[in-house]
Amino acid sequence: MTDLVRARELDAADPLRHARDLFDLPEGVVYLDGNSLGALPKATPGRMEQVVRQEWGEGLIRSWNTADWFTLSQRVGAKLAPLIGAAQDEVIACDTTSVNIFKLISAALAARPGRKVILSEPGNFPTDIYMIAGLEAQGLARRRLADVDAIMAALDDDVALLMLTHVHYKTGRMLDMQRLTKAAHDAGALVLWDLSHSTGGVPVDLGGCNADFAVGCGYKYLNGGPGAPAFAYVAQRHQAGLQQPLTGWFGHRAPFEFSDDYDPAPGVDRLLAGTPAILGLAALEVGVDLIAELGMGALVAKSRALSEFASGAIAERLSDLELASPHNPVQRGSQLSYRHEHAYPICQALIARGIIGDFRAPDILRFGFAPAYLRYEDVYNAVEALAEIVTTGAWNTPEFRKRAAVT
Amino acid sequence: MTDLVRARELDAADPLRHARDLFDLPEGVVYLDGNSLGALPKATPGRMEQVVRQEWGEGLIRSWNTADWFTLSQRVGAKLAPLIGAAQDEVIACDTTSVNIFKLISAALAARPGRKVILSEPGNFPTDIYMIAGLEAQGLARRRLADVDAIMAALDDDVALLMLTHVHYKTGRMLDMQRLTKAAHDAGALVLWDLSHSTGGVPVDLGGCNADFAVGCGYKYLNGGPGAPAFAYVAQRHQAGLQQPLTGWFGHRAPFEFSDDYDPAPGVDRLLAGTPAILGLAALEVGVDLIAELGMGALVAKSRALSEFASGAIAERLSDLELASPHNPVQRGSQLSYRHEHAYPICQALIARGIIGDFRAPDILRFGFAPAYLRYEDVYNAVEALAEIVTTGAWNTPEFRKRAAVT
Repeated sequence: MTDLVRARELDAADPLRHARDLFDLPEGVVYLDGNSLGALPKATPGRMEQVVRQEWGEGLIRSWNTADWFTLSQRVGAKLAPLIGAAQDEVIACDTTSVNIFKLISAALAARPGRKVILSEPGNFPTDIYMIAGLEAQGLARRRLADVDAIMAALDDDVALLMLTHVHYKTGRMLDMQRLTKAAHDAGALVLWDLSHSTGGVPVDLGGCNADFAVGCGYKYLNGGPGAPAFAYVAQRHQAGLQQPLTGWFGHRAPFEFSDDYDPAPGVDRLLAGTPAILGLAALEVGVDLIAELGMGALVAKSRALSEFASGAIAERLSDLELASPHNPVQRGSQLSYRHEHAYPICQALIARGIIGDFRAPDILRFGFAPAYLRYEDVYNAVEALAEIVTTGAWNTPEFRKRAAVT
Repeated sequence: MTDLVRARELDAADPLRHARDLFDLPEGVVYLDGNSLGALPKATPGRMEQVVRQEWGEGLIRSWNTADWFTLSQRVGAKLAPLIGAAQDEVIACDTTSVNIFKLISAALAARPGRKVILSEPGNFPTDIYMIAGLEAQGLARRRLADVDAIMAALDDDVALLMLTHVHYKTGRMLDMQRLTKAAHDAGALVLWDLSHSTGGVPVDLGGCNADFAVGCGYKYLNGGPGAPAFAYVAQRHQAGLQQPLTGWFGHRAPFEFSDDYDPAPGVDRLLAGTPAILGLAALEVGVDLIAELGMGALVAKSRALSEFASGAIAERLSDLELASPHNPVQRGSQLSYRHEHAYPICQALIARGIIGDFRAPDILRFGFAPAYLRYEDVYNAVEALAEIVTTGAWNTPEFRKRAAVT
């Protein structure tokens, strides 16, 4: 049986085969970058039209009450919560991942007086590490980076917070949340998990792992749109005492009393700062609804099967290509990364053929497998194109080697 | 000549009379709340459709380059700059007003070591004052509030930053930016102006006033939509040394080098933190383009004429109603506020008649005059309804007195 026949059989038997039709994907494109920007749900343009024309245009200021804009951050958070093993009142959608990281690093420092170290790993997603820098310049935090293998040894009495990304953006490696959370707690530290590359792609059980804090982004597997609002999670046990420094009016107990004194809202609401981004939240809600409806069980099963199919086919066609992701699908996110000296022009040559993956400096070719809309036959076609480009050297043209201003 | 005849004459002679047709306003509504949430420009739904269907849906991840998403924050900032007397490279659109205030308070503290006091006035817009609280809890800042008359006396060697709202949200009182900025500088302090109720409604000349920092919101007179991204201004002379603690990847000199070390972008770009909110920025750009096209000169002239017409008609019909705004239109923003013991039910009774102003606790009736889409005849109708409601006591029903969950 050829790979193509097998791909078609797998598609025919796929319990999620109907889901692709819920997305608007361009013709002739195999989209392997849903881990960077998720595809457009078909329901989104209609919902945006409604929020713009009816809620904003017709309802005007009244829509804060009549269209429930006031509780949109909470509502999206509550819908997102079951996807990551959280209770509904533990998650709120707001701001960006970066800003939410800042809030929760600061909250950990406030909760662990006398400890200043924020422990992470080198090569973590840049914004996570960068968000320590500002607090370091203020004298509030100290950065410590240790390779994941050395994390246990680096957890000492100075560590206020262990901050890690659950699924690594570059390699797709997935960390053992349960074990690392316990290790941090044993050392008296709190833990903050960045779920940006996890949510909607892999199983996450924040509650079961006894995690303290988490953040994640809305524009990858949640399909919330470019620059979608992010989310933040605070375990119930930390909510009453939570102190975060972005003390804006939407995090106040009673914003419309217009008092001069800040009095934080109970619960996770106190993570809000400014006026919520209604247009972005409305688009995110559509994406979250869709993922919740498809169900994490089916999505995770298909994600693993898709990446297994891809890695098998690539190993067969390009046996020299170095897999930078873990070989075991339960130890990685919904992606495969390969190392190649010429990853950049290979990626450009793929894009020219409608196969959209991405490049991560200096030498990573990254393919995401968004299980909601990707078919096995798409993966087959992508592997065929990749094999052709690599074996013939078709990537080696001035056009493909020319770097974009931003890659 | 009756007020109605005069209103119609003023409308006929209005150089901005064509502008109303550029907005989508509901039938039967007189919208006096453009200072809280601006109306929907007719061009916005089409632009949103384009950014959602074409740029996101068709372009997918490629649109970061091909649709210039990477520079959208800068582009909107540059278009906004001339409306507030700034150079194009001094303004950037991002995050919320609250978050931008936090960045710039922190930047002032970094630029004035040894000084911890942030000076503002009691009753300033809550989020402005609240944003000091988080920094105070971290031991970085100290809040000092002084009535505007006593601000000069409160400016001493401990003050790092004078932070004031240019047009007061409740009363509409406009401060003397030139004089107060100079006073702050004479005391060795920096100054941060909140332009949320100014931008697009009154003349602002940040450069001419030698202002250091400013912030403002996109959803009022700029008509950027509910929860639109905000903006921040940093005078060129402060940009090279600017330190702000929300050190996210979009504020990095080269985000896609994925280095572990934070190296701030040159200029105002370093105010960026997380991934920009593309949907919100796209809507904001339409609103900014529209206001820029109409021109601040014409808008300011009409704003003053509208509020003069309104205050004259109200004084005639309801001579006892106490004006909480300055009597001189050049000393106030594009709004009029009145004090009334029963402001809340009066506001509800007006809304029931399609006259949408708003209530600000405890006793303020607030009417905004967005000059781009408001007609003199609208103002006439609003005053008629107000006079009828107040003189007949039509506000005094259980329905109008019942408070919404959020007012």
